[in-house]
Amino acid sequence: MRNFEGIEIGDRRLVSRVITEQDVETFAGITGDCSPLHLDEEFAKKTVFKGRIAHGMLIAGLISAALGKFPGVVVYLWQNLSFLKPVRAGDRIEASAEVLEKVSERSELRLKTTCRNQRGEMVVDGEAKVKIMELESSGEGKTAGL
Amino acid sequence: MRNFEGIEIGDRRLVSRVITEQDVETFAGITGDCSPLHLDEEFAKKTVFKGRIAHGMLIAGLISAALGKFPGVVVYLWQNLSFLKPVRAGDRIEASAEVLEKVSERSELRLKTTCRNQRGEMVVDGEAKVKIMELESSGEGKTAGL
Repeated sequence: MRNFEGIEIGDRRLVSRVITEQDVETFAGITGDCSPLHLDEEFAKKTVFKGRIAHGMLIAGLISAALGKFPGVVVYLWQNLSFLKPVRAGDRIEASAEVLEKVSERSELRLKTTCRNQRGEMVVDGEAKVKIMELESSGEGKTAGL
Repeated sequence: MRNFEGIEIGDRRLVSRVITEQDVETFAGITGDCSPLHLDEEFAKKTVFKGRIAHGMLIAGLISAALGKFPGVVVYLWQNLSFLKPVRAGDRIEASAEVLEKVSERSELRLKTTCRNQRGEMVVDGEAKVKIMELESSGEGKTAGL
C-alpha cells in the first residue's frame, strides 16, 4: 500500500520539546535573526513582552518536525502561521499536525497545525499542505519530511 | 516620530545568507526535525529531490530576519509560506520583506515576503503581517523583531 493511502482524516502527529535559551541563540546564529527582542534581556524588558522571547519561526520548526512524522516522503507545500502568544526559554511546546482533508488525485494532505505551551495555551495556529511521496527506489522503511 | 510613521509602502529589507550543511544539521537539532530527507544523503537520493535539501522552515527563518530589520519592536503576527523549490547546502538565499500596506490605526504592516536563490529563482513566496511597537521606556536606538 502506498503511504498516502494508509493515512486517514483525523490522524495526528505530535512533537513536544522544551525551548531553551541556547535554542534561541542557535536559531539566531543560523538565520541571522539577531533581534535584541530574542537576545538582549535588558532591551526586551522594555517591550510589551517584558523579557526575551523565542523566534516565532523556531516554534514553527516544531510543526515541520510533526509533519515529518507522517509516513512516506513528506514534501512541504504550504504553511500559514498565526503567532498568538510569546514563547519563552523554559516553555514546553507541543506541536500538533492533524489531517483535515485528503486530496487523493494529488496525494496531498491539508492539516490543522498548532503549537501549545505547558499551560495548554495555543501559541501558534495555522494550516499546512503537504504532498506524500514514495521513495523512487523502494526497499527502505524510513520516512522523511521537509 | 514613532517608528511606524517613518515606514513607507514599498520599503524593503533584505537578508542574504549561504545555507550550509551545518545550518541544516543545527536546525534539525533545535527543532527535532531529523527527517532523512535533510540529513541522510543516501535516502534523499532516492526521492524526487535527488539529494539532501534544507528544511523549509530554516529558509523561512531568513524572512523573519528581514522583517526584524524594520525599525521599532517588530511583533510577528502572521505569515504564510509557499515552498516552491528545494534549497540545498551551498545555495545563497536572499530573503526580502517589502511593505504592501500600512494599517495605521493598529500600527500594522502587511508585507510581501520572498526568498530567491543565487539563480534568481523564487524558492519561498508569501505574505506576512507585523505590528510595529515602540519601546515602553525610550532612550535606546536598537530595533527588534520576533
